[in-house]
Amino acid sequence: MERITIIGLGLIGGSLGLALKAAKLTGIEIVGYDKDTPTAGEARRLRVVDKSEPSLQRAMRDARLVIIATPIMAVRGVMEEIAGELQENCVVTDTASTKAIVMEWASELLPATVSFVGGHPMAGKETAGVQNAEAKLFAGKPYCIIPAPDASEGAVRVVTGIVQLIDARPLFIGAEEHDRYVAAVSHLPLVLSSALFTLVRSSPAWPELAGLASSGFRDATRLASTDAELSHDICLTNRESVLHWLDRVVEELGRYRELLEQGQEEELFKTLARAQLDRDTYVAAGPPVREPVAAEELLTSGEQLAALLMGQRLMRRVKDLGKLLEEKQERGHRQGVEGGD
Amino acid sequence: MERITIIGLGLIGGSLGLALKAAKLTGIEIVGYDKDTPTAGEARRLRVVDKSEPSLQRAMRDARLVIIATPIMAVRGVMEEIAGELQENCVVTDTASTKAIVMEWASELLPATVSFVGGHPMAGKETAGVQNAEAKLFAGKPYCIIPAPDASEGAVRVVTGIVQLIDARPLFIGAEEHDRYVAAVSHLPLVLSSALFTLVRSSPAWPELAGLASSGFRDATRLASTDAELSHDICLTNRESVLHWLDRVVEELGRYRELLEQGQEEELFKTLARAQLDRDTYVAAGPPVREPVAAEELLTSGEQLAALLMGQRLMRRVKDLGKLLEEKQERGHRQGVEGGD
Repeated sequence: MERITIIGLGLIGGSLGLALKAAKLTGIEIVGYDKDTPTAGEARRLRVVDKSEPSLQRAMRDARLVIIATPIMAVRGVMEEIAGELQENCVVTDTASTKAIVMEWASELLPATVSFVGGHPMAGKETAGVQNAEAKLFAGKPYCIIPAPDASEGAVRVVTGIVQLIDARPLFIGAEEHDRYVAAVSHLPLVLSSALFTLVRSSPAWPELAGLASSGFRDATRLASTDAELSHDICLTNRESVLHWLDRVVEELGRYRELLEQGQEEELFKTLARAQLDRDTYVAAGPPVREPVAAEELLTSGEQLAALLMGQRLMRRVKDLGKLLEEKQERGHRQGVEGGD
Repeated sequence: MERITIIGLGLIGGSLGLALKAAKLTGIEIVGYDKDTPTAGEARRLRVVDKSEPSLQRAMRDARLVIIATPIMAVRGVMEEIAGELQENCVVTDTASTKAIVMEWASELLPATVSFVGGHPMAGKETAGVQNAEAKLFAGKPYCIIPAPDASEGAVRVVTGIVQLIDARPLFIGAEEHDRYVAAVSHLPLVLSSALFTLVRSSPAWPELAGLASSGFRDATRLASTDAELSHDICLTNRESVLHWLDRVVEELGRYRELLEQGQEEELFKTLARAQLDRDTYVAAGPPVREPVAAEELLTSGEQLAALLMGQRLMRRVKDLGKLLEEKQERGHRQGVEGGD
């Protein structure tokens, strides 16, 4: 039985548990830990994990794969706590929305004997918490994978395998690039949505505005209902990129403003029509098709994943054997040199 | 048979037709007109109207209620064209997203013998056209009603009755107020959504951004897919209010920017948490309960609507009778005066 441990049983951790269990993995046990005891109990009750452990230390025991799914600002603390508990060749991944800082923490805190492969599922919803977890949350969604420079090939395969098992689209990307891009398509919309809501909500005419508001307003402000801790952590850990895109959207709004104020009707129409056309095209096209890993490398079953996780454990033995062989050869070589003509 | 004529068979006109037909009105015939002949044919095929007429003039014949559901900028032209064709006591309404300018046009162009009651259903979707019409489009949504100062009470009851029959929430409001408020909850989100999309789409990294974008980006940019003619007409006919709210949202984004740049973490968290809490409360509360008309005045069936439409026709006769009586009394009075002592 190979053990996968999920630390942090919120919407993402819980959904990962459900999705992995839905994949009907044989030979794999999913263990959960949440520092909030009622949450851990709820996770057990909802069967998002096979079992939960009362202490992080116990949850980590014998884990071959550790998934850190806590709020971003808690990741560092978790890494500090688990660093001493990790088995050799263990695979560690996370689900945080910003990656550069997490990669730094991993490099600083995790032992060289484990492999860290950062992850970021581009999925979520505005209703947080394990009670809203869904096995299908990641289906069809991009899932960014950012291996640490020293992560083993096997560790990358394990995380890619997990991503494929939960039906998400693996997307390999650098940490800095990830943070810049995600700021545009995820963090900026979040801030815009929140700012739109707080602006309208603070109007003295709010009761009338609320009565008039319909599905357009509701959709445009949906992201304002994102868990505030998540939004806050995102803003702080990806500050530069968020500021950059905020400035750019204000410029773009200025462009619209100018067209409107100066009565440049034709140009305004062209801009709006181009946006409509491009967005319709984008939506109709669906997500881009990517084949980030060769077909023969795809994991298609839980058994393969278990084998891979086990393989990670065997790797150390292979390495040891390799060293032994090397030493032996070296000895032979030395002997040859020493004893040669 | 009382005739309701819908001019303009797009998403809104078509959905109104379907919703009215779903109300199973007896004694009422729904006639459609669209200057685009294939659209009129499609509307007939989809049975959103009982019949369509090839000319506006023929469509108007004997209409007791005329609903102008064309693009905003076309409303003025339609009013000019139909002004000479309207029966006395006919009720005219529209569905345009801005109201002050439409009320002006009506006052300038429509004869004093008809009643204009402006309307604005706060419903729609980003897929335009009669082929996307839905009978349920207005269900539960606010529907603004703005009677012209000289509109008859019966005309207001007719339009209110229609709004209730299609399951929308009647909302009485002044035209200027409407335009200012709707700019905040509908027109501003539209411009924000379009600007966010054009900004991200114009990035050289667009292919990567599109690959990373998920449901958050899709929802936040949904309104960018609004029919460009509609967005354009809205911006032009409600320019001042849109500019006002654009300036305010840029200020609000500046406030977020400052909190983020100056590292005011606690204040930023409070702002985001307040937005989350307030929006959750707003969504949970659902639309405010309003009782804009007394219960006994509610129309509950198509028959009542037909009776009301017929009543409008009878009103002229009553008025004529009233005049006759007055004249008679006056004559009697004069006779009395003349023949008095």
